[in-house]
Amino acid sequence: MQTDSYVIQVNGSPVHPKVLDVHVNIQRQNSIEKIKNRKPRWAVRASEMSKKTFNPIRAIVDSMKAKPHPDKPMIALSIGDPTVFGNLPTDDEVVRAMKDAIDSQKYNGYAPSIGYQSSREVIAKYYTCPEAPLEAKDVILTSGCSQAIELALAVLANPGQNILVPRPGFSLYKTLALSLGVEVKLYNLNPEKSWEIDLKHMESLVDDKTACIIINNPSNPCGSVFSKKHLQKILAVASRQCVPILADEIYGDMVFEYGAFQALAPLSTNVPILSCGGLAKRWLVPGWRMGWILVHDRKDIFGKEIREGLVRLSQRILGPCTIVQGALDHIMKRTPQHFYENTINFIKVGIDMEHFPEFESDVDFTERMISEQSVFCLPATCFEYPNYFRVVLTVPGEMMVEACRRIHEFCAEHYQGGDSAQDLECDK
Amino acid sequence: MQTDSYVIQVNGSPVHPKVLDVHVNIQRQNSIEKIKNRKPRWAVRASEMSKKTFNPIRAIVDSMKAKPHPDKPMIALSIGDPTVFGNLPTDDEVVRAMKDAIDSQKYNGYAPSIGYQSSREVIAKYYTCPEAPLEAKDVILTSGCSQAIELALAVLANPGQNILVPRPGFSLYKTLALSLGVEVKLYNLNPEKSWEIDLKHMESLVDDKTACIIINNPSNPCGSVFSKKHLQKILAVASRQCVPILADEIYGDMVFEYGAFQALAPLSTNVPILSCGGLAKRWLVPGWRMGWILVHDRKDIFGKEIREGLVRLSQRILGPCTIVQGALDHIMKRTPQHFYENTINFIKVGIDMEHFPEFESDVDFTERMISEQSVFCLPATCFEYPNYFRVVLTVPGEMMVEACRRIHEFCAEHYQGGDSAQDLECDK
Repeated sequence: MQTDSYVIQVNGSPVHPKVLDVHVNIQRQNSIEKIKNRKPRWAVRASEMSKKTFNPIRAIVDSMKAKPHPDKPMIALSIGDPTVFGNLPTDDEVVRAMKDAIDSQKYNGYAPSIGYQSSREVIAKYYTCPEAPLEAKDVILTSGCSQAIELALAVLANPGQNILVPRPGFSLYKTLALSLGVEVKLYNLNPEKSWEIDLKHMESLVDDKTACIIINNPSNPCGSVFSKKHLQKILAVASRQCVPILADEIYGDMVFEYGAFQALAPLSTNVPILSCGGLAKRWLVPGWRMGWILVHDRKDIFGKEIREGLVRLSQRILGPCTIVQGALDHIMKRTPQHFYENTINFIKVGIDMEHFPEFESDVDFTERMISEQSVFCLPATCFEYPNYFRVVLTVPGEMMVEACRRIHEFCAEHYQGGDSAQDLECDK
Repeated sequence: MQTDSYVIQVNGSPVHPKVLDVHVNIQRQNSIEKIKNRKPRWAVRASEMSKKTFNPIRAIVDSMKAKPHPDKPMIALSIGDPTVFGNLPTDDEVVRAMKDAIDSQKYNGYAPSIGYQSSREVIAKYYTCPEAPLEAKDVILTSGCSQAIELALAVLANPGQNILVPRPGFSLYKTLALSLGVEVKLYNLNPEKSWEIDLKHMESLVDDKTACIIINNPSNPCGSVFSKKHLQKILAVASRQCVPILADEIYGDMVFEYGAFQALAPLSTNVPILSCGGLAKRWLVPGWRMGWILVHDRKDIFGKEIREGLVRLSQRILGPCTIVQGALDHIMKRTPQHFYENTINFIKVGIDMEHFPEFESDVDFTERMISEQSVFCLPATCFEYPNYFRVVLTVPGEMMVEACRRIHEFCAEHYQGGDSAQDLECDK
């Protein structure tokens, strides 16, 4: 049996609304024989899913053609990896924790796919608070925060549904959603209000196919930290619209003003939240791939179904490296406070394009900055936010100073229509 | 706009074959207003994908209700984890490699999502041979062999296609395929012929929707090792039908007779092969989640498309732990030969059910063995192969002897219709 499509015109009537198209299943007598007698040929094609999986940072960066200026060594302010220059090693206690875990030979075997019970307890204890209590059963360990976000999206959204995602925002949300056949709706952040969410715009995007809202706080790439009041307003939207939240809080506590970060879940009385985090940023070990989902569901709205769904999905590739799991207790308890105080974060840099008429776009602008100044910043088109570029702050101080000097020189050379190149808004 | 289904009867005619069913898309005038005015309610449901993800080992094991006999301490011969009893630690060189990688602080940052170039070179050099040459570009590092299989399936198969899977066979193939919406067709292994593939049966299952054939050699759970001649016949089927092969060779070289294992790719002249492997079994560190895909494509049938698809899919969760990647060179070069010679493997144990009339099934049989003898073996229904059970060989010797004594006692007590309980075929 084979399915073909025909379009049949049918007149509309008051009873039956207008027919748009009709699909007819027909039975072909000879189709089975045809298949059996087909002459096989090699025709191996990549799946639709692999084609839909699209990482814009990689796609934009890999197609940028600029070569660095030959007389100036390259400074890359593009990828937010705190480890590449060797100036930000992880703490000695973290190193010791890993070596003890290896020496013990206790963490070589299979762990449960959601992580060792004891390791999940460690994370639960670290993040629990009276307003949002957590136990081991509320924690799922994942292969990095990326897999945490993947599992959270995969359990909440079906193909054809949509999710709300911040613009500018981290590109992985869209990459994962599209690969799952889930539509992405972009809600605006307001650069005039320290990149707070345009709540009216966000709420206007909710429809009956909205599976979740992604809230990224502190924000990548904006570096903004939402106030308690703003978070409460976000929760009010989710509560009114009955849409769960996926909170990407991987940069939690990595803020310039100590204590300024407020996690979302303790403010929620009813909105169910999957909070995603990991060791990557705060402990400066993004390559170790240790992430987690914290399940906050005090009104039992996720219920057993979402929890069991997460467990089942985790069984596809069986969780993160057990050595890192085994080291978690030591890492969380003994990393000294002064280590955390080496806090890193991102700044945003806007381009006042009307004063740079020779550049077509932020991609053009950043390409020319590579060829003339050998300074590489990510164009914010990567974050769905044209005419900005992102600068990372994780490079050594003297390199940062040199990079700023060169960016300044570049702007001074190309700026038109004013006295000086004062248009960079740095709000570090 | 909304889609409803109606069934409309239409008369068959010589020109148009019989209509089986008709789907009609209709436009509802008021549906948009309805959505806007809907009264939101909390109704968070787990996705279809999470519901389709089903791990039979977990489902069968978690629903087995037997409690161990109170006077006999439990012996679990069910899960093939070589590390749980502490009698099979990994080698000192492997431990040293990991600690050096940690101390270097060179492997804390993000690696490319398919793994460091240098680590991929290590794996390429380890597995390359003149008949099937490999370079770094042919290697993709993954979070365990599970993710290797997941990526390979996800790049080759679309929802609605099918894959061919051995019966009895490792359950993850089906778990992953169903979660991707891919159908599973089971081909038979022949217990009378050392669990070789029933090639006629396998070939009869190929149709124009077959995305790949999974070949698992050495086999989990059968412990069989295919001869060169049998592998050549398998390749002949794939070549005739023009279907690529996913070779799960994670147990490669873990065979009782040294040199008996023959990888598939060196025998292939044209069939494109994705060979999946990892550190888990041979280096006794399944928890570390280090796996790989080796891309063999000498006739350029996979081509750029499959390779690029694998790269894109790997960008969803960004590869395996960098510390283990950093340790790979040392591990592959310096693990001594005598370590590998502590080879482990599985045996198969069949139940002659007609001589055990009081048991309904292998699940029943193994449950009763827990309650009477406190010996836990996995019923082979977990591997789509009723009336067998699996025994793992990774427990300490004295425990294995005790387990065999108890299994023997259990069989002697329940055996009917013959002189003794000689029906266990152990072919270790």
